[in-house]
Amino acid sequence: MENLLLWADPIAIAVFAASGALVASRKGLDVVGFMLIAAVTGFGGGTVRDLLLGRTPVFWLRAPLLLGVCAAVAVLVFFAAHRVESRFRALLWADAVGLALYAVLGAETALIAGADPWAAVLLGTITATFGGILRDILCNELPLILRREIYATAAAAGAALFVVLRVSGTERDLALAGGAALGFAIRATGIISGWSLPVYRPRPARDYPNQG
Amino acid sequence: MENLLLWADPIAIAVFAASGALVASRKGLDVVGFMLIAAVTGFGGGTVRDLLLGRTPVFWLRAPLLLGVCAAVAVLVFFAAHRVESRFRALLWADAVGLALYAVLGAETALIAGADPWAAVLLGTITATFGGILRDILCNELPLILRREIYATAAAAGAALFVVLRVSGTERDLALAGGAALGFAIRATGIISGWSLPVYRPRPARDYPNQG
Amino acid sequence: MENLLLWADPIAIAVFAASGALVASRKGLDVVGFMLIAAVTGFGGGTVRDLLLGRTPVFWLRAPLLLGVCAAVAVLVFFAAHRVESRFRALLWADAVGLALYAVLGAETALIAGADPWAAVLLGTITATFGGILRDILCNELPLILRREIYATAAAAGAALFVVLRVSGTERDLALAGGAALGFAIRATGIISGWSLPVYRPRPARDYPNQG
Repeated sequence: MENLLLWADPIAIAVFAASGALVASRKGLDVVGFMLIAAVTGFGGGTVRDLLLGRTPVFWLRAPLLLGVCAAVAVLVFFAAHRVESRFRALLWADAVGLALYAVLGAETALIAGADPWAAVLLGTITATFGGILRDILCNELPLILRREIYATAAAAGAALFVVLRVSGTERDLALAGGAALGFAIRATGIISGWSLPVYRPRPARDYPNQG
Repeated sequence: MENLLLWADPIAIAVFAASGALVASRKGLDVVGFMLIAAVTGFGGGTVRDLLLGRTPVFWLRAPLLLGVCAAVAVLVFFAAHRVESRFRALLWADAVGLALYAVLGAETALIAGADPWAAVLLGTITATFGGILRDILCNELPLILRREIYATAAAAGAALFVVLRVSGTERDLALAGGAALGFAIRATGIISGWSLPVYRPRPARDYPNQG
Repeated sequence: MENLLLWADPIAIAVFAASGALVASRKGLDVVGFMLIAAVTGFGGGTVRDLLLGRTPVFWLRAPLLLGVCAAVAVLVFFAAHRVESRFRALLWADAVGLALYAVLGAETALIAGADPWAAVLLGTITATFGGILRDILCNELPLILRREIYATAAAAGAALFVVLRVSGTERDLALAGGAALGFAIRATGIISGWSLPVYRPRPARDYPNQG
């Protein structure tokens, strides 16, 4: 378990990189395109977190190992993606692991930087979702955040549990594991069952202008 | 009037948050999705401004009150949006108020940071428009900036008037109020009349490849 | 040649600004919209580079000359674009020049900031591509990076050659010129011939949900 926590950051980067490479495969890019989308997705959330906190130069400029992880994942997906039965489901699950990990890691970094607890939950949610948002925008896909299954809520719940545990004195490893587990469980439920929170139901769209 | 100016920043955040929540309602998100889009829209412009100027950690990490405003606005819209006759028009007006306020607030921050006057106008325009751009991109809507009615021009005019007034020695409150009033008046004219500046008229699209 | 290198930054800004204004003309914006899109495209790549490295306030806040270049290019395109036979091809070529220049300039800035060589190649690629990505996202166009012709690969190759030359002791001017020439040559080949690297070929899209 401790080892897992030590590796939470590289694992989050690797699974998000894989989700990015899977979207690149859906778009028919070349191998350099795979690497670029993988890197942007893998580093995106942590980069936004570092920028908002003022921790620059950002972490990946001096982390050849992490760059290697991204590149290796991208090449692997480039050559192996045709063996995956449903690339879309593989992408959902990789994204879910990254979402759960970055939610607690983002919240922790915010707390360490002296952010107030509510802001830590928001920063965790933003860190968890922005890598995927950048990926989907770059690739002209509908952002996962707009799909019906519960998504941002999973990140927010994981970050919130982590913050509550930490503020109430729980030790770091337990709080990280608990928050990530809750976030992943909620998102997994959403993927498996298509379950969502009660959503706003728009009335018939009389007043909606046509949009592109 | 002085009170209004003191509250310009929270008001800009609240109205942009409302515009974000209204777009979330058009997309049928859950309440956490409402809060996230409200926060990104409300804090987006000010965050871009702070990042460009190097003022980090960004302001909302230590502003529980502003987070509360965003969350309250999101919840209110979640439960009350069905009572609004045209959510799209409500969204246009909320966005217009935020646009006018952030244009002058962004320009002022740039001047204080020692930016040159032209750059202050550009930064004001960017601050005013990027919250809404982030909102529309996240929600896969056509950015307001691409609609026919005058938009970026309103922000630029408000920021420019503020900068001219300040550089020529007018006191702060008057310059802020004047710039915001001009920006709002121009944008309001655009909304009410569908009026636009002379636009570039493309020739028949012989050479345009199909785009997604 | 030396003069050209001295002017690499303003030239990259000017050609990207022109590509932004050309997209604005395809969208039928007004002249202020032209200026805003031109500025965002021209300054986008360099701004992302500066933010990631922590070099704030960003460069254009104190560079009235560069702002003037962007504005002049925007106005020129506003009045002259109808004379261009194919605005889309003009845009491709302006973008190609900017891509090649920003790839090496971005990589150089990263090296100077102490980034490791692989990270410098990635930062060069990001610097070269993000101005155009911001332009295309703001204007709701399909990002050039998703088109079939080789694109990100050209930026990465130019940045990589520059980094290899610099690390192996070549002098700055030669390395910059070599990297930019390679990047431009590869991208030009892609534009002229529609040539691309072997791409990932998706299987029939059984499991693809419909996307907007």
